[in-house]
Amino acid sequence: MTTHRFAPQRYHATLGAHAPVLRIAGGDTVVTTTVDAHGFDHENVHRGGDTNPMTGPFFVEGAGPGDTLAVTIRRIRMNRRMGWTRQGLAWNVVDPSRVRDMPAREKIFWSIEDNAGIIRLDNPPAALREWSVPLKPMLGCFGVAPAGGEFISTATSGHHGGNMDYNRFGEGATAYFPVAVEGALFCLGDAHAAQGDGEIAGTGIETSAEVEFSIEVKKGHAINWPRGEDAETIFTVGNARPLEQALQHATSEMLDWLRQDFGLDDAAASHLLGMHVRYDVANVFNPAYSVACRLDKQVLAAFVRRG
Amino acid sequence: MTTHRFAPQRYHATLGAHAPVLRIAGGDTVVTTTVDAHGFDHENVHRGGDTNPMTGPFFVEGAGPGDTLAVTIRRIRMNRRMGWTRQGLAWNVVDPSRVRDMPAREKIFWSIEDNAGIIRLDNPPAALREWSVPLKPMLGCFGVAPAGGEFISTATSGHHGGNMDYNRFGEGATAYFPVAVEGALFCLGDAHAAQGDGEIAGTGIETSAEVEFSIEVKKGHAINWPRGEDAETIFTVGNARPLEQALQHATSEMLDWLRQDFGLDDAAASHLLGMHVRYDVANVFNPAYSVACRLDKQVLAAFVRRG
Amino acid sequence: MTTHRFAPQRYHATLGAHAPVLRIAGGDTVVTTTVDAHGFDHENVHRGGDTNPMTGPFFVEGAGPGDTLAVTIRRIRMNRRMGWTRQGLAWNVVDPSRVRDMPAREKIFWSIEDNAGIIRLDNPPAALREWSVPLKPMLGCFGVAPAGGEFISTATSGHHGGNMDYNRFGEGATAYFPVAVEGALFCLGDAHAAQGDGEIAGTGIETSAEVEFSIEVKKGHAINWPRGEDAETIFTVGNARPLEQALQHATSEMLDWLRQDFGLDDAAASHLLGMHVRYDVANVFNPAYSVACRLDKQVLAAFVRRG
Amino acid sequence: MTTHRFAPQRYHATLGAHAPVLRIAGGDTVVTTTVDAHGFDHENVHRGGDTNPMTGPFFVEGAGPGDTLAVTIRRIRMNRRMGWTRQGLAWNVVDPSRVRDMPAREKIFWSIEDNAGIIRLDNPPAALREWSVPLKPMLGCFGVAPAGGEFISTATSGHHGGNMDYNRFGEGATAYFPVAVEGALFCLGDAHAAQGDGEIAGTGIETSAEVEFSIEVKKGHAINWPRGEDAETIFTVGNARPLEQALQHATSEMLDWLRQDFGLDDAAASHLLGMHVRYDVANVFNPAYSVACRLDKQVLAAFVRRG
Repeated sequence: MTTHRFAPQRYHATLGAHAPVLRIAGGDTVVTTTVDAHGFDHENVHRGGDTNPMTGPFFVEGAGPGDTLAVTIRRIRMNRRMGWTRQGLAWNVVDPSRVRDMPAREKIFWSIEDNAGIIRLDNPPAALREWSVPLKPMLGCFGVAPAGGEFISTATSGHHGGNMDYNRFGEGATAYFPVAVEGALFCLGDAHAAQGDGEIAGTGIETSAEVEFSIEVKKGHAINWPRGEDAETIFTVGNARPLEQALQHATSEMLDWLRQDFGLDDAAASHLLGMHVRYDVANVFNPAYSVACRLDKQVLAAFVRRG
Repeated sequence: MTTHRFAPQRYHATLGAHAPVLRIAGGDTVVTTTVDAHGFDHENVHRGGDTNPMTGPFFVEGAGPGDTLAVTIRRIRMNRRMGWTRQGLAWNVVDPSRVRDMPAREKIFWSIEDNAGIIRLDNPPAALREWSVPLKPMLGCFGVAPAGGEFISTATSGHHGGNMDYNRFGEGATAYFPVAVEGALFCLGDAHAAQGDGEIAGTGIETSAEVEFSIEVKKGHAINWPRGEDAETIFTVGNARPLEQALQHATSEMLDWLRQDFGLDDAAASHLLGMHVRYDVANVFNPAYSVACRLDKQVLAAFVRRG
Repeated sequence: MTTHRFAPQRYHATLGAHAPVLRIAGGDTVVTTTVDAHGFDHENVHRGGDTNPMTGPFFVEGAGPGDTLAVTIRRIRMNRRMGWTRQGLAWNVVDPSRVRDMPAREKIFWSIEDNAGIIRLDNPPAALREWSVPLKPMLGCFGVAPAGGEFISTATSGHHGGNMDYNRFGEGATAYFPVAVEGALFCLGDAHAAQGDGEIAGTGIETSAEVEFSIEVKKGHAINWPRGEDAETIFTVGNARPLEQALQHATSEMLDWLRQDFGLDDAAASHLLGMHVRYDVANVFNPAYSVACRLDKQVLAAFVRRG
Repeated sequence: MTTHRFAPQRYHATLGAHAPVLRIAGGDTVVTTTVDAHGFDHENVHRGGDTNPMTGPFFVEGAGPGDTLAVTIRRIRMNRRMGWTRQGLAWNVVDPSRVRDMPAREKIFWSIEDNAGIIRLDNPPAALREWSVPLKPMLGCFGVAPAGGEFISTATSGHHGGNMDYNRFGEGATAYFPVAVEGALFCLGDAHAAQGDGEIAGTGIETSAEVEFSIEVKKGHAINWPRGEDAETIFTVGNARPLEQALQHATSEMLDWLRQDFGLDDAAASHLLGMHVRYDVANVFNPAYSVACRLDKQVLAAFVRRG
């Protein structure tokens, strides 16, 4: 139950079997920092990479293929005042006939007012002068080394997690990843100060951060896609294009979860999901889209949870 | 401001320029009944059709092409105890490799306990014996006559509305439809006692209903896709396959709404949506899928609404 | 075995149960004319409509639900010199990041040199000054009244045929349509002087035409999607979005055909298709895309054809 | 202009910056062998891996980022008699409602009759007893190391090539790959004795092979997606899901090619493609689908080729 403080010296552009930077154990907590999506740190110094450079990997003792890694995000503190987005919306989230008239995708700057818990545009258009966004930090990209010897760009996502950009991966949430290699090799980065569904601006409010997380290993508990939970819900995340396939993966994974931990076979689970399921479009921008299949814990309160 | 009571004699399998059954005026209220998705009424007598037979059309005086029809769903009362769904999930919402092992799509019956506000499976599997679903009625299929002389099956949806199966179209919600023909020719049907996101069982809890709605005409206010609002949110609905296209339509329509009624150009609206947008997968089962683009009214409170 | 000459007086913007303009019998031939996709005739006079106005419908005696209508395109003669396309490519066939730099979608004019069998750009850019396109006429939009009382826009397609824009529907080809209403109610229009795969410019070379076709009824022979054949191949056409779904429909229909007429069950047909199938992207522009699943007759020569 | 004979000792499950097995130069030819898609060699001995194990990588002297690697497939000789496929079709190429009735996906064996130039099912169903498939060898999976430090599974494909399963990559074809790392690091494997469009059985006729290829480096000639040509056509290959995106990539790459080597700007190229383009569905089975955009050399004969 050690708390590690780790200051990263380098960052990775892929999730894969890179040499670990620290060995930690189940129950441990890590306090570390992440650079922003373009590799700039808390002093806005470029520290490497240009698409979601990762802090890590952390080697988790005892974690191996077929296990599940549980990562609880204890705290995400924005460690600099500046955040950025892009103007306009991603070309693929509006009608194709509309693309030519959308605003150019210039870089836009925001001020993160940590004490007030809000974020403001630095040069707002007149209509947005009074507008601010509640600070609600999240991790855009995190996960473990993929299976099969792959090293996968942090621009995208897959079974191993990665750039899911799901706004429920915030403070207090626990993420579950399928372990594919010895030590799991967990990495994290790409903190957002806030973000709506779908990451439709192509970014959240991108910034550097100090992050505290703790780790558990669920031995012999195999999952296929990332899962997560917070105080209110449990959810599964499918990562693929198109959206329909991401939704299929997330739904299939939820059927597995309901069978494994709640004792519901596919017929019973289908009745439950048919009436209670919620879907979140986590991101509809990255090379792989992410869709979450979600159930309220209130719905599940009637069932014994074994996992 | 008349209240009409209308007892339907026949039902339509398409939305189109059928002969109107009643002429009503802006401000009027209508109390009528709908049969279930297979055409059975409150006494479980088959009254016609087998896919979302429609009550109507209602000719709205003064409504014409280029106007918007606002329909407020005042009340949806389940007028029979029996509801039905299908077992298992739709083939297209789970991984293709999983389809062969899913439960067969048998018809399943439920009891609607109106007073208790819940619905129960008639023959639940053991694991679901204590489980009930809160009654939360909605209209699965409603809309106006399409443009261009089309008559479109009530199995699907489009600019004109139709079989959107969106669970926010419940009591208290107002739906907005683009008027394409003189009198708008509004129809309704396919009430569900409850339904999760996506209509992934291929049905809600299907039943007949008594429905009360009121009508307003917004003259000279043109929209392109259905819109809606309730106490908490405003939303737009895109109807198309695949999900990405439905999402593009909904997002584009929300940009229009924010410009028309809230004075936000595409650049300002993009900032707002990037941080606050919510997407709902209304249905991922029908020939056209439906995706809603949604904003909380709390977020919009800072802006003057003109529409 | 009558040959009818029919001069159309009006045109339809939908395929559906419009009043028939002529009654014909199996074995009959019809010579008639079609206006271009914007409703202009051989003298460039606007005769009605603006999206694929249809000549017809022709009532085919003896054709009813569950039968198949076979339409052989005997001849398509361009009856005017002017054809048109649009500049650039449809927004949805290039990378979204590229849309803003594509040429504007202006109307472009061509000269059809019927005797020479070629078509030339009227005002070619320098690089295309020597370039001409071989004349290869086809019907972009034709089909029968849909099932279920629908009237479907001629901008799109479905089980009933419609705007498939498949360049193999040219002279000598036979198209098969599932009959859904008494008399089948066959319509035709939207002739193209030439067109590549996918109709990626959003048009073929659009023009008016004189068309000669003959009709047969296959009683009690039910099909689900349009089929066709010419001297070299047989093919099925799936109409839907996205492309994957259109391909699924076409492949499923080919499995049906191979079972019905060639005695191959799904296992045998799968071996054959796995090694010999060809797919054509007929159109990737219209509201429903069209994909053809095709087999060479040479491959099928080894099997007895019963249909 | 050396000819190298290379006998592989190990195989890779990913395309990436593995240690090179041989250094070759522009103009050189290599004769080597590949194992089948499950890692079995010419004596049916398992030599490693289970999804398209790769022979290589070959380090090409002088090739670096921004260059193009041209690989001409001189010869593919099947070096064993046994080939295999799977029964039935991939679940995703037929209507979802049909999946449950399709044949189980058992492994099926074929005999490659090299001298006769045909392939026969070992245990054909009665209907296929006389049927044989012409031998038409191709490489299913080949390419270079991807950019950005990725190691990408040979089950899928991308900018770097990989598992495209395109039946035009046969004897006599030249493939072009964008070089992303020093030496390009070319790998090859997954030979098919024959395969229809789309690899819809989920396999071609999988076998081991002896392959002869020659290499050229096009210095300073940057491409974005794989390209290719044979005696009849030039083509570009987009690799992505869904099919529409793969088609967008391929079309965009063809616009680039027509500008770079044939002097056609987007407006001129659009006219040409609109009338002459052909699309091939190379594979609709792998994690990334592959679509080829193709032009006949006959069409291009009118233009001066500079590249």
